[in-house]
Amino acid sequence: MTGQAAGCIVVIMTEQDRAGPHFADRVVEAQKRKASVVVLGIDPQLDDAAAKGLPPSYELGKFCCEIVEACAPWVVAAKLQLAFFEARGLEGMRVFAEVAAFARGRGLLTIADAKRADVAHSAAAYAEAFLGSGELGCDAVTVNPYLGRDGVEPFLQRARADRGVFVLVRTSNPSAAEFQDLAAAEGALWEIVARKVADWGAPFVGQYGLSSVGAVVGATYPEQARRARQLMPRTLVLAPGYGAQGASAEDATAGARADGLGLLVNASRSLMYAWRQSGLGPGQAAALAAEKMRRELQQALAQSQTRAPAR
Amino acid sequence: MTGQAAGCIVVIMTEQDRAGPHFADRVVEAQKRKASVVVLGIDPQLDDAAAKGLPPSYELGKFCCEIVEACAPWVVAAKLQLAFFEARGLEGMRVFAEVAAFARGRGLLTIADAKRADVAHSAAAYAEAFLGSGELGCDAVTVNPYLGRDGVEPFLQRARADRGVFVLVRTSNPSAAEFQDLAAAEGALWEIVARKVADWGAPFVGQYGLSSVGAVVGATYPEQARRARQLMPRTLVLAPGYGAQGASAEDATAGARADGLGLLVNASRSLMYAWRQSGLGPGQAAALAAEKMRRELQQALAQSQTRAPAR
Repeated sequence: MTGQAAGCIVVIMTEQDRAGPHFADRVVEAQKRKASVVVLGIDPQLDDAAAKGLPPSYELGKFCCEIVEACAPWVVAAKLQLAFFEARGLEGMRVFAEVAAFARGRGLLTIADAKRADVAHSAAAYAEAFLGSGELGCDAVTVNPYLGRDGVEPFLQRARADRGVFVLVRTSNPSAAEFQDLAAAEGALWEIVARKVADWGAPFVGQYGLSSVGAVVGATYPEQARRARQLMPRTLVLAPGYGAQGASAEDATAGARADGLGLLVNASRSLMYAWRQSGLGPGQAAALAAEKMRRELQQALAQSQTRAPAR
Repeated sequence: MTGQAAGCIVVIMTEQDRAGPHFADRVVEAQKRKASVVVLGIDPQLDDAAAKGLPPSYELGKFCCEIVEACAPWVVAAKLQLAFFEARGLEGMRVFAEVAAFARGRGLLTIADAKRADVAHSAAAYAEAFLGSGELGCDAVTVNPYLGRDGVEPFLQRARADRGVFVLVRTSNPSAAEFQDLAAAEGALWEIVARKVADWGAPFVGQYGLSSVGAVVGATYPEQARRARQLMPRTLVLAPGYGAQGASAEDATAGARADGLGLLVNASRSLMYAWRQSGLGPGQAAALAAEKMRRELQQALAQSQTRAPAR
């Protein structure tokens, strides 16, 4: 695709794989077109003691598609959290496929937030599931690094063509530090993972200097996000944690490159459930929240570029 | 269920959760009844250049169920690898549910080899998917520790009742060492994870002294398996890697307790694809391979108990 040397990576190309343009390039172009780094997280919560997961009189598919439709002008991608679809069984998985197709139809990139990883044969099957051309296939997938290169390799192969991969580096949850911050001689575990992600992604850098092998770095830890950017200068960072998980716009943009590129910021509950704090319908409330989030993040990016050109 | 103190763990009990007996106790009782530590891995491969994933004229469900039916007398559990079902889209997921139900009907424990983990809300949804009472629900699930306690907690809550959890500690793949062997002050990453798994499982120890919070320790690394047993004396170890991945019966039993308990050994391809090396049908070939594997592992366990009573 972009003529870089493949290094030691074994690449299996199929007709399907050759289809589209470079994933990170597509992200940058969508961001420029929409002046937005926002990713819409589709996390349709389960019912709990405090609240129902779906708005009154909504079915799962209708709820998710209404949110996608309403937010599409303000966001570059939809990130579908597999857990909330699998928890609803086979019907949930049917709706996952429906919502992914709907988001693609609205011009959004789709990210399967699956956090998968397994031994090579099984990882290849997951790559086929979420980056292939089947019903569950998306433009990108999140993966877990615990198994090392083997568990990630089959996903990387798909980055050769038009697919993207986001490897968990520093997650957004409160216990992220428990293992990820363990200090080895070469640095904290997450820093070592970050360096590997930079290496793994080196053959897949596109015309904007960003690799289709990205990283998940939680927006809730801005100090680590800045360090992550140093360790992974050409890595597309997906930052979850804005909104309901507590990260501010300044926190969430800490991982951007000096030119403002290289960053996607996800919010899920604060968009999908904005209707609970308003008298509006789910779609209308989500669209207002997404537009506000887009604007705040663009301002924070502009300020950080003014403040720290050499970062 | 067994009267241990809950410690700091928040437990949400539902009617469904209260249903059955302790998971690790059920494993031990099945092992005693069948004189077997064998787990049948259901990994229906995808087609590749070398071979078709399904035997000629078989459909996915028929293939998997025939293998389960034939092996049921020799194995205590069926471990279904989610990747190979998700790779086949919605129809694959339908068959996953069908095969899991079929295995339960044949008296087998079911393990969803999902290797899931996510931030708390999402992890709770995965726990509902794979340890709940829905279509994809199994007796146990495999989980990934990278996110720390938060990502595992919702699964642990299900161990309070009759469900089991197997946390990845030291995996069976060639690149397992890449991150898992990183040396911190407290030991290698995988050893630190092992100690945590022992702690997390302490409130869930059953009448045989084994916790329903188990660990995955690859059979391909017997030295680590012996060390893992020292670090996790009350942990049920699920050891993949026997057969096609290269572990011998002696390797695979390295992680057993001195009394021979606490171990499950999985084989997938060497059972499901035994028909390729024989003139027999898939079920018949798998049954012969499973019986042979059962016998070899029982012999290796007996020998290791004779050889090293103080281990």
